[in-house]
Amino acid sequence: MSQVIATYLIHDEKDLEKKAEGIALGLTVGSWTNLPQLQKEQLQKHKGEVVSVTPLEEDERVNEYLGKRVKRGLVRIAYPSLNFSADLPAILTTVFGKLSLDGEVKLVDLAFSEELKKQFPGPRFGIDGIRQKVGADHRPLLMSIFKGVIGRDLDYLSEQLKQQALGGVDLVKDDEILFENDLTPFEKRIINGKAVLNDVYEKTGKKTLYAVNLTGKTFELKEKAKRAAEIGADVILFNVFAYGLDVLQGLREDEDIAIPIMAHPAVSGALTPSEFYGIKSPLLLGKLLRLAGADFALFPSPYGSVALDRREALGIADELTKEDEHWKRSFPVPSAGIHPGLVPLLIRDFGIDSVINAGGGIHGHPDGAEGGGKAFRAAIEAVLAGKTLEEAAKDHKELKKAIDLWGAHEVAV
Amino acid sequence: MSQVIATYLIHDEKDLEKKAEGIALGLTVGSWTNLPQLQKEQLQKHKGEVVSVTPLEEDERVNEYLGKRVKRGLVRIAYPSLNFSADLPAILTTVFGKLSLDGEVKLVDLAFSEELKKQFPGPRFGIDGIRQKVGADHRPLLMSIFKGVIGRDLDYLSEQLKQQALGGVDLVKDDEILFENDLTPFEKRIINGKAVLNDVYEKTGKKTLYAVNLTGKTFELKEKAKRAAEIGADVILFNVFAYGLDVLQGLREDEDIAIPIMAHPAVSGALTPSEFYGIKSPLLLGKLLRLAGADFALFPSPYGSVALDRREALGIADELTKEDEHWKRSFPVPSAGIHPGLVPLLIRDFGIDSVINAGGGIHGHPDGAEGGGKAFRAAIEAVLAGKTLEEAAKDHKELKKAIDLWGAHEVAV
Repeated sequence: MSQVIATYLIHDEKDLEKKAEGIALGLTVGSWTNLPQLQKEQLQKHKGEVVSVTPLEEDERVNEYLGKRVKRGLVRIAYPSLNFSADLPAILTTVFGKLSLDGEVKLVDLAFSEELKKQFPGPRFGIDGIRQKVGADHRPLLMSIFKGVIGRDLDYLSEQLKQQALGGVDLVKDDEILFENDLTPFEKRIINGKAVLNDVYEKTGKKTLYAVNLTGKTFELKEKAKRAAEIGADVILFNVFAYGLDVLQGLREDEDIAIPIMAHPAVSGALTPSEFYGIKSPLLLGKLLRLAGADFALFPSPYGSVALDRREALGIADELTKEDEHWKRSFPVPSAGIHPGLVPLLIRDFGIDSVINAGGGIHGHPDGAEGGGKAFRAAIEAVLAGKTLEEAAKDHKELKKAIDLWGAHEVAV
Repeated sequence: MSQVIATYLIHDEKDLEKKAEGIALGLTVGSWTNLPQLQKEQLQKHKGEVVSVTPLEEDERVNEYLGKRVKRGLVRIAYPSLNFSADLPAILTTVFGKLSLDGEVKLVDLAFSEELKKQFPGPRFGIDGIRQKVGADHRPLLMSIFKGVIGRDLDYLSEQLKQQALGGVDLVKDDEILFENDLTPFEKRIINGKAVLNDVYEKTGKKTLYAVNLTGKTFELKEKAKRAAEIGADVILFNVFAYGLDVLQGLREDEDIAIPIMAHPAVSGALTPSEFYGIKSPLLLGKLLRLAGADFALFPSPYGSVALDRREALGIADELTKEDEHWKRSFPVPSAGIHPGLVPLLIRDFGIDSVINAGGGIHGHPDGAEGGGKAFRAAIEAVLAGKTLEEAAKDHKELKKAIDLWGAHEVAV
């Protein structure tokens, strides 16, 4: 039967088996025990089912914080697809609509049946398609981020873009807080960006893609994105969680917007970090972004100042990259606080099918963004060749300067 | 200057003044101290400003839970409107995009300058407009909810609708988990609902409105809502938080969808309940729903099993109903666990400009939904006349049965 199985982490004073039964019925047919037999037969195919209830150890720290003695457990409930239309708003409302308001319940995972999976597109290009576009195989991609661009003009952005591209990065992304504005309007950023990147390409032979921030009102996004595609935008950056996952899917599914989409995690921290409430990161920033169609998914790296728990970050990357019959793979982009000295850790944790993404670690290089990009590229090359950064830095002055400044986290091979 | 001032509740080991400065710069111009004077002059109007930092008392319970000693405080930061387009995704990304991922930070409030307020529509009808539609002044409205409708056919829904309307309710809303389906498709529910309610009106002279659940993919919602308006839908029910606040605004702003919108809080519990993270309820379920255009906003009542802290619930209602030069007022709909015996508490807490909304408290009445509606109407009349429910029940058999079953929470006048 086509269905979605939701896994919840529940903290509750009540018996978890009973709570689970209440959820399975309350979010589907409503009541059961007292229904006449004929109605039971009619409604059986709509009835939610408790798949499992796995008790977890009590946690004194949690009990003290909540001021009550709670049972902890993982509860899995199956909801028949027959009950909802095949779109994320319907699925989220079913499995975590009213329930999100019902005490300490966190949505941990959603397992889609094969039939349901087919209703979601996954990324249009995916890791392999993006690799073709940038012409880079067998290594992590390198991305850098515009910095301090609010209130600046197109010349300023062009120069920043040029310096970043000259360092050999594969992608440059807009700052996610750069919206439609008179100084650097959307279409001009795209056209201007293409010209700058073409100049660099002619000089260096290196292709760099520019991810432009798609912003504005929801119902105007498609027209704007189509226009972006027409004038040759490379990639769209999108603040999915300021809009809605289904808006991402709508953009992905439009054949006139056939460009890669990079999902930014802005606002998602309102949903993920609590132990008790919200939605677990690997589901929200991993599985759901992928099935809705993101080619890239940014999330906090486990290393920087805005750090995500390492298991969560690895969980996200796993959801984005594991083989799936229905969906292409999406690029994990662990972000924030990344400098060249972290490349050994990044490759150990996220492998070559990932994007190494830096802001300060590019722009803050003693030789500027160009030097920053070169240092990163050298660090990546070194790690893939089995060398330490220390060793590689002997023959590479930008890498040397970077590790002198930020240090190097070598990883024992 | 046009701006939005965000208030955050922050728990942090670091000095809060310094943290606040970092946020104000980091989410606007990026850096400041080392900029040349000329650039400072150019960027001044884009620079975020710390408005205030109000330390709160340390909380040992919090320290123990977080496993670190944290300072607590309310931080207010002003962001110039110049930095963002006048839409909620841009504002949320600016004030709580990256920041939502940066440790223990909760978004408590957003204060919009007058100029910015003008960019948001508020409800199309508001409390006064809705009162005209239902023909009810000087009392709270009464709403009931379809129950157990998944897997049921149109005849079943019709009969339920009729019973509810016969009880004298002002509104009946769809179950929020009823999506597009073969048995009770959207358009048929509207047409059929109108016929049933017209029959009841001819019999009783009482107008009842039906709120139909608008569901499906985001980019198909407008067409569907327009069709609903064409065939005469009374009210649209909408799971805003499964889509996005800006989708609500898009529906509100479309002149071809000139029907009231009822916002359901499904999925919002993923954002609001944590002490440390997310968005405070009065902002999310009150102010933002109102400015984006909801005529009604449902939220958990402070009384039922799915209970919201009373101050939070009152805060939501206050945001929805306080006078504002730019926006009409929205109906607060405190929901879940409501029975006739709670009417004195509801009117004490939410006044007459609110909707009393019940599911089980209507359908579970010993005389069925019709009896439930009548009991509620009698309870409302009693409270407004300054009588106790006990007293009123002497002359009203449905109310008597209700308080015998559920009890009565009389309020001292």
